[in-house]
Amino acid sequence: MSEYRAPLRDMNFILSEIAGLGAIAELPGCEDASADLVSAILDEAGKFAAGVLAPLNRDGDVQGCRLADDGTVHTPDGWAEAYAQFRDAGWIGLSLPTEFGGQELPKAVSTPVWEMWFSTNMAFAMLPQLNVGQAEALLIAATDEQKQRWLHKVVGGEWGSTMNLTEPQAGSDLAATRCRAEAQADGSYKLFGQKIFISYGEHELTPNIVHLVLARMPDAPPGVRGLSLFLVPKYLPGEVGEPGARNDVRCISIEHKMGIHGSPTCTLSFGDAGGAVGWLVGAANRGLETMFVMMNDARFGVGVQGLGLGERAYQYALGYARERVQGRDAVTGESGRPIIHHPDVKRMLLSMRARVMAMRALLYTAAGWFDVARRHPDAAVAGKHRRYVDLMMPVAKGWCTEIGNDVCDDAIQVFGGMGFVEETGIAQFYRDARIITIYEGTTGIQANDLVGRKILRENGETLQEMIADMRGTADEVRADDSLGQIADTLSDAIDALESATEWLLANGEERLAEVLAGAVPYLYLLGTVSGGWQLARLALAARRELGAGHGDVAYLTSLIDLVRFYMATIGPQAMAYAETVREAGAALNHFDEASF
Amino acid sequence: MSEYRAPLRDMNFILSEIAGLGAIAELPGCEDASADLVSAILDEAGKFAAGVLAPLNRDGDVQGCRLADDGTVHTPDGWAEAYAQFRDAGWIGLSLPTEFGGQELPKAVSTPVWEMWFSTNMAFAMLPQLNVGQAEALLIAATDEQKQRWLHKVVGGEWGSTMNLTEPQAGSDLAATRCRAEAQADGSYKLFGQKIFISYGEHELTPNIVHLVLARMPDAPPGVRGLSLFLVPKYLPGEVGEPGARNDVRCISIEHKMGIHGSPTCTLSFGDAGGAVGWLVGAANRGLETMFVMMNDARFGVGVQGLGLGERAYQYALGYARERVQGRDAVTGESGRPIIHHPDVKRMLLSMRARVMAMRALLYTAAGWFDVARRHPDAAVAGKHRRYVDLMMPVAKGWCTEIGNDVCDDAIQVFGGMGFVEETGIAQFYRDARIITIYEGTTGIQANDLVGRKILRENGETLQEMIADMRGTADEVRADDSLGQIADTLSDAIDALESATEWLLANGEERLAEVLAGAVPYLYLLGTVSGGWQLARLALAARRELGAGHGDVAYLTSLIDLVRFYMATIGPQAMAYAETVREAGAALNHFDEASF
Repeated sequence: MSEYRAPLRDMNFILSEIAGLGAIAELPGCEDASADLVSAILDEAGKFAAGVLAPLNRDGDVQGCRLADDGTVHTPDGWAEAYAQFRDAGWIGLSLPTEFGGQELPKAVSTPVWEMWFSTNMAFAMLPQLNVGQAEALLIAATDEQKQRWLHKVVGGEWGSTMNLTEPQAGSDLAATRCRAEAQADGSYKLFGQKIFISYGEHELTPNIVHLVLARMPDAPPGVRGLSLFLVPKYLPGEVGEPGARNDVRCISIEHKMGIHGSPTCTLSFGDAGGAVGWLVGAANRGLETMFVMMNDARFGVGVQGLGLGERAYQYALGYARERVQGRDAVTGESGRPIIHHPDVKRMLLSMRARVMAMRALLYTAAGWFDVARRHPDAAVAGKHRRYVDLMMPVAKGWCTEIGNDVCDDAIQVFGGMGFVEETGIAQFYRDARIITIYEGTTGIQANDLVGRKILRENGETLQEMIADMRGTADEVRADDSLGQIADTLSDAIDALESATEWLLANGEERLAEVLAGAVPYLYLLGTVSGGWQLARLALAARRELGAGHGDVAYLTSLIDLVRFYMATIGPQAMAYAETVREAGAALNHFDEASF
Repeated sequence: MSEYRAPLRDMNFILSEIAGLGAIAELPGCEDASADLVSAILDEAGKFAAGVLAPLNRDGDVQGCRLADDGTVHTPDGWAEAYAQFRDAGWIGLSLPTEFGGQELPKAVSTPVWEMWFSTNMAFAMLPQLNVGQAEALLIAATDEQKQRWLHKVVGGEWGSTMNLTEPQAGSDLAATRCRAEAQADGSYKLFGQKIFISYGEHELTPNIVHLVLARMPDAPPGVRGLSLFLVPKYLPGEVGEPGARNDVRCISIEHKMGIHGSPTCTLSFGDAGGAVGWLVGAANRGLETMFVMMNDARFGVGVQGLGLGERAYQYALGYARERVQGRDAVTGESGRPIIHHPDVKRMLLSMRARVMAMRALLYTAAGWFDVARRHPDAAVAGKHRRYVDLMMPVAKGWCTEIGNDVCDDAIQVFGGMGFVEETGIAQFYRDARIITIYEGTTGIQANDLVGRKILRENGETLQEMIADMRGTADEVRADDSLGQIADTLSDAIDALESATEWLLANGEERLAEVLAGAVPYLYLLGTVSGGWQLARLALAARRELGAGHGDVAYLTSLIDLVRFYMATIGPQAMAYAETVREAGAALNHFDEASF
């Protein structure tokens, strides 16, 4: 099995040159995030990921989880020890408030750290990831008393966290939620109902689990405006906060899945024995808004999963391609050389690396926008970055998860027959990755969110602002003679994006069904162009360093070549997507559903 | 689990209107292939596929194969009974000579039949598929005595067949084959060595197994020109041809794979106890040529696997989308309707159907070319179709397997979270499909074959001839006012193909590495355009029928709409691929391998 090597050079370069770590460290509350400290944190995380998490990844896949007759769920061997180390090292609270035990570092810093967890053991990392999302939700919606009572445990990872949304009839459509909550005299609630697809819904890794549950009160209005959020612990806290009586929530089955076998996916039944005790979090009937906070954080995190899995699959494939000797050189006829010398294998590897770097540049940059949005003292600057974050969230999730899958697919192809055999380990990444375009909102849901809520609703204003920034980058690239081809393709791709956007805006009202039929191709278009935009910034940064005589010439040159390759192979797809956005809807509408 | 419905209407329409079944039935030796008989055969095959093979598919995946301590391999429950029925019904010899017990029907007829086997149980169908390929090889290379001795058993399916090429150090590169064969005084040989990835290399489904094995004689020249082909039975035939003494070949392990669990993938060891007895088939040192006959047939068959899996995945997704109620209509706000009404779900389904029909039209047409090539009395006509078959073989394999995977991927996406859960069954198609872009030559190998052997070697002559035929179709489409958009995109795509081909031809000599770096994008380009070409012929046929007042108006109209949708969504990718063919190589070459 390939050893994981944390891509620290790429991470540090992108953080400092693209995501603006220097400027972030000047924001109020971010003063600790010096380049040195950040580099030290990434270094430590890389060691932990490679040393503790990576070695458990395949065993977790092979062994999987088991629901015992007594209702307990057993995670794979080694999970408990690794979790204890992870928790004790303080990794969970990395980006969370110091007030509750966290380190309050910028999201631009925590994002590469999470990338490493997902690269080395996604099924494991989903557990602490839930704590972070739940903490964000409680920070926004919980009362001070609730925060004091629960947040320390969640931020420190002493207790586990879950989010309970899905029910058999309510997947993408939460309006169909039936789980009900009945008010009790003491101010608490009793919950009744079933939730499915609950990651880490039950396990023995922590002495307690905090479930956040969407449910409906008896007098609530129908639809999503009648959903409230409840905190339902597995064990009711006792006098001093210790886990006390068992609450009426039980795991009744776990799923047999294609991947992420190490992560138990539970069906939870609430209230079979009189009602599960819970407490309202936030205002009644406003639960979905709070849940969206948790979900938005989780969506960004799932985008980072695409990056993490892609990086690891790339490392595996590269390692194999450097070792595996096969075939003759098509040009020289020479034999006995590793397959990396075959043009098509080199093409796959370079394409994998180009897409991984595009995802990384995009996600770290978006994380930096998030930090500026949250902390910049100038409201106009903060507001612009908040709008940028909101616009790009469905792209960060939708595009990076699709690309992450594509990269894992290419990794199998590099391995050939050995990729289809489970023993080599690469198949697991392909199987694990298949969930990420689905959970936390499918690519189709992301695309509808992008087109409907993020673009049409505001008449494309934020996107136009972003396109202007993209053109600024293209102009800078064009001004550098050595980057000619990059500028040409980037400009063409931006033109394609702009014309497709104009078409969306012109037809969003009268031909909404047609516009939505092109929503996923549009999301791919925006992802392709955004990734290219950030890579163009990477090429400019590399040129700057080269011009200044800094850094490793071979590395910097390779970055520019990588961007050139992206533009030659992925850039042209932007034009195809734009064409499809404009044409697909009419062709689709014309087709009679009865004729399928 | 979704019931399989044989797509008989689509099959019959494509056979008669696109693949030219009428003309094929007039070829010498094909007189039996009347439309009525063919329709009856497809009907029977559809019943067998749905009634016997489909019900075993998921059990086969769950149960898998097992190597017992005594070296026997156990296939899933039901395999033996199904195989007996399959064999007794005469399906194996459908396209093989009557002289050896077959029915000698055209390949255009056997191709849809095989599509059904692959749709319903690919892991099972791989067994009889091996018999067909082996029979083709023996027909070409074996002596009359060998044919009489072995072919009846192979064609009738009384005995199983395997092809033994791969060794640990010899996968795509057969020149590295080490398995050796030593001549014996009686004219037989003794074989020594290990072969891996041997599908159905060992099982108890037939009383004997006929292995065709590539091996090297002691005095053979190095490389692929020193490989000979040997027939090595599991049991040496006795006096009257019955299985006699056990031969010295044993299964020493079976692979644990991502998919096709019902098909045992064996490591076979030859000669551990003194040598496995075998007989030379064909001339010494010319084994690869014969093996290529078997492999070419298998490659086409693997393309049909892409079609079959895609069709079944489409049926599953369609069934689910029609039943699953979720969400509100984005335009009307109406709720309680199945997800097929969501524009993005309809888009995925239509895209799946469009690609399945493109693969079907392309593969059935190519099968028809094969029949004309083999049987047409006019040597010029036969020769043209032979060249067309040769040119399109890597596309039939390479493009249809990639597209088949893409369609299975979309099927999971339609299922959402339920697609990731194994119980729904759709995940199996996705996992099974992952092997088809790898075995019988990866997509990269197909693309090198296409660009190197099929195009550069003959200076693109056959392709130019085919492009002229494509332009003829485009002209016909353009002459029909109602098909305007189809004509525009098809013409643009043909232009893109032609310009990319000119670039290949201009640079194939001096910049071969760059040309080969674009080989896979070029294969996608040719597949996309060829699929579009055949679909354009489908639209023309539908228009003809409509104009003549024949057929089901709704069905015929839906075919035209389907083609329009293909041109709107898949057609534009041709231009992107062409751009990549021209640009990828230079960017790739520039990248220093040490910088990965």
